[in-house]
Amino acid sequence: MTATVLTQPFARAEYDDRLRRVRERMAERGLGCLIATDPANMNYLTGYDGWSFYTPQCVVVPLEGDVRLFTRQMDANGARLTTYLGDDEIHGFPDDFVQQRDRHPMEWIADELTRHGLLDGAPVGLEMDAYFFTPRAYEALRARVPRVEFTDAQELVNWVRAVKSPAEIELMRAAARIAEKVMRAGIDAIEPGVRQCDAVAAIYDAQVRGTPETGGDYPAIVPMLPTGEGTSTPHLTWTDDPFVTGEATILELAACRRRYHCPIARTVFLGEPPRKLTETAAITVEGLDVALGAVRPGATCEHVEAAWREHIARHGLEKSSRIGYSVGIGYPPDWGEHTMSLRPGDTTVLEPGMAFHMILGMWMDDWGFEASETFVVTESGAECLCSFPRELTVKR
Amino acid sequence: MTATVLTQPFARAEYDDRLRRVRERMAERGLGCLIATDPANMNYLTGYDGWSFYTPQCVVVPLEGDVRLFTRQMDANGARLTTYLGDDEIHGFPDDFVQQRDRHPMEWIADELTRHGLLDGAPVGLEMDAYFFTPRAYEALRARVPRVEFTDAQELVNWVRAVKSPAEIELMRAAARIAEKVMRAGIDAIEPGVRQCDAVAAIYDAQVRGTPETGGDYPAIVPMLPTGEGTSTPHLTWTDDPFVTGEATILELAACRRRYHCPIARTVFLGEPPRKLTETAAITVEGLDVALGAVRPGATCEHVEAAWREHIARHGLEKSSRIGYSVGIGYPPDWGEHTMSLRPGDTTVLEPGMAFHMILGMWMDDWGFEASETFVVTESGAECLCSFPRELTVKR
Repeated sequence: MTATVLTQPFARAEYDDRLRRVRERMAERGLGCLIATDPANMNYLTGYDGWSFYTPQCVVVPLEGDVRLFTRQMDANGARLTTYLGDDEIHGFPDDFVQQRDRHPMEWIADELTRHGLLDGAPVGLEMDAYFFTPRAYEALRARVPRVEFTDAQELVNWVRAVKSPAEIELMRAAARIAEKVMRAGIDAIEPGVRQCDAVAAIYDAQVRGTPETGGDYPAIVPMLPTGEGTSTPHLTWTDDPFVTGEATILELAACRRRYHCPIARTVFLGEPPRKLTETAAITVEGLDVALGAVRPGATCEHVEAAWREHIARHGLEKSSRIGYSVGIGYPPDWGEHTMSLRPGDTTVLEPGMAFHMILGMWMDDWGFEASETFVVTESGAECLCSFPRELTVKR
Repeated sequence: MTATVLTQPFARAEYDDRLRRVRERMAERGLGCLIATDPANMNYLTGYDGWSFYTPQCVVVPLEGDVRLFTRQMDANGARLTTYLGDDEIHGFPDDFVQQRDRHPMEWIADELTRHGLLDGAPVGLEMDAYFFTPRAYEALRARVPRVEFTDAQELVNWVRAVKSPAEIELMRAAARIAEKVMRAGIDAIEPGVRQCDAVAAIYDAQVRGTPETGGDYPAIVPMLPTGEGTSTPHLTWTDDPFVTGEATILELAACRRRYHCPIARTVFLGEPPRKLTETAAITVEGLDVALGAVRPGATCEHVEAAWREHIARHGLEKSSRIGYSVGIGYPPDWGEHTMSLRPGDTTVLEPGMAFHMILGMWMDDWGFEASETFVVTESGAECLCSFPRELTVKR
């Protein structure tokens, strides 16, 4: 097997820098080793990109020494093709460990980790809230190496991801060029009598076709397209019912480039919109401006949310849920990074290079409105990645 | 809030029957209550369908009494719109529990379960290997109600799902009609010089547009399209590199109707295929026939695999990984049901109504071939849901 590598999105030096920053935090927390199971963190650390997270896998970072990747044997070639790791650093567990009652792949992985001395000494950090790292996997690991001290690494790698490099922001900008086309395709497709699925087909086509320069990858979340009464809740997908005059549709979409996301949400109304909707839309869009205007290095996440909250309160509105979150690399089911949220109590200080999806979803009893922007914190404020009208689109 | 329900795919009686069968197994195992966190199981039990599994959620089935659904507050309306549950049976946790370091939604859920007496008495079954039930969620739950006895329910609901009703098979047949169009779109799009992403755009369009009668939903797995050397490994997605003459591309695709899947895999070659590929393809396609011919009620999963294994051994080939798995409802990252596998050691006896994806992936050092069929076990054998040529497609 040759060690061919598909073109990686970053220079090796960038991966080295990521590892350096991860190890700094590991040292601060006294971790001897970190087991990263979140596919986004695995990608960040090694470049690994494959739809293999439905069986156990992890990237293991010792404080010193080689980084190793563990996955199912049939996916080891995928790791060879997408990462900078050498053959000796990629370990595939045999297929007869998959979905068996009497054994678990984490047992095999624990044995390999032991064999390479990776569990000796200081506590081993685990990503205790990573999707796909299940309680059964956790218990299998602990039972196999009962003397090893494990600890919750919290979102250690996620926090390192929070500040993006220029190369990462460039990928998010490429995603934004696609996202604009995606939203345009969606809004154009929504007409009375058109089936929801046909509009979503146009959206998917735009997401993946991308631009002539850069194709699109699959976003971590499918197109959300609640319509009519469905706009009262954010996470319904589509049916094959037709769009009808007199109803709003919320489009919560995104584009993705090399796993980097640019989400965007807008709302469209077919026919003459009710006044409560147009008024809420206007207040929300103004609020988006106000909140973006509060973004600057040194401000806190909760400070940005407070600007929004004060604005809508003046208009008699309130919103109980957060208005944004850190965004970047993502795999299903989420493009959020699970670190900063724009909400009361989040005192994280904004730094240049942080990226957020600010999403103002106003969900009422049986109607709703959404508008969002993905932005990067700059030296002086917020750079919105997309250029797309924020107002309620009315198609009469 | 009215209790509007979007059209559910099944009559209420079918949901009642599912619950009855789940409770029978619960009683056999001495479970007083089951907490289902797998989105596919939640859908099976209640009809719930929303992209909300990135925050904690569950369906709770007591041995007697009301079924309850727990999700994030903003998603409660989605549950009202897609399930038969009444407002009192849907519980939304406040947004300030989302992704916080000092609290976890499972604590709120544990309190509600306690308040409703759902954790009293007999052991509570948990889905310890469900993708979105994390160790942190598990520990938060246990810490909140330390006296409650929890036990791994294994794949209890998954096993109830194994035998499909006629209404479920009807949805899989509808998915098959779409899957045929999807594979046709994919094969048609692959030409020298065409970007991979443009072919995938055509595939997505076909997946979601469906047929004039039935639109398509998002499959649980994105289109897999390994090409060239990438065909040596199964789970790579696409790039924007062009297809080139002299290379094979494996298409591992699916269609989905109301969360029911029909996967299909085929292989295409641009130009004159090498003999090792055409020979392996011919043996594999014959083996597909042989293995399907071994399917009948009363046979075991391993019996079906043995027929395949003997066939390829006669031609000097071997395959270390399983050749199929139970399929039906699915959410990302998997459309497999995590119950039966067609492999040595799986002695599950086939019954009419069981459905499998039989996938013959032959991954060599730097090339590969795949063909698959989704089939339902009938009274007398296997009914393949798709009608699509299985041979290597050669485009000269």
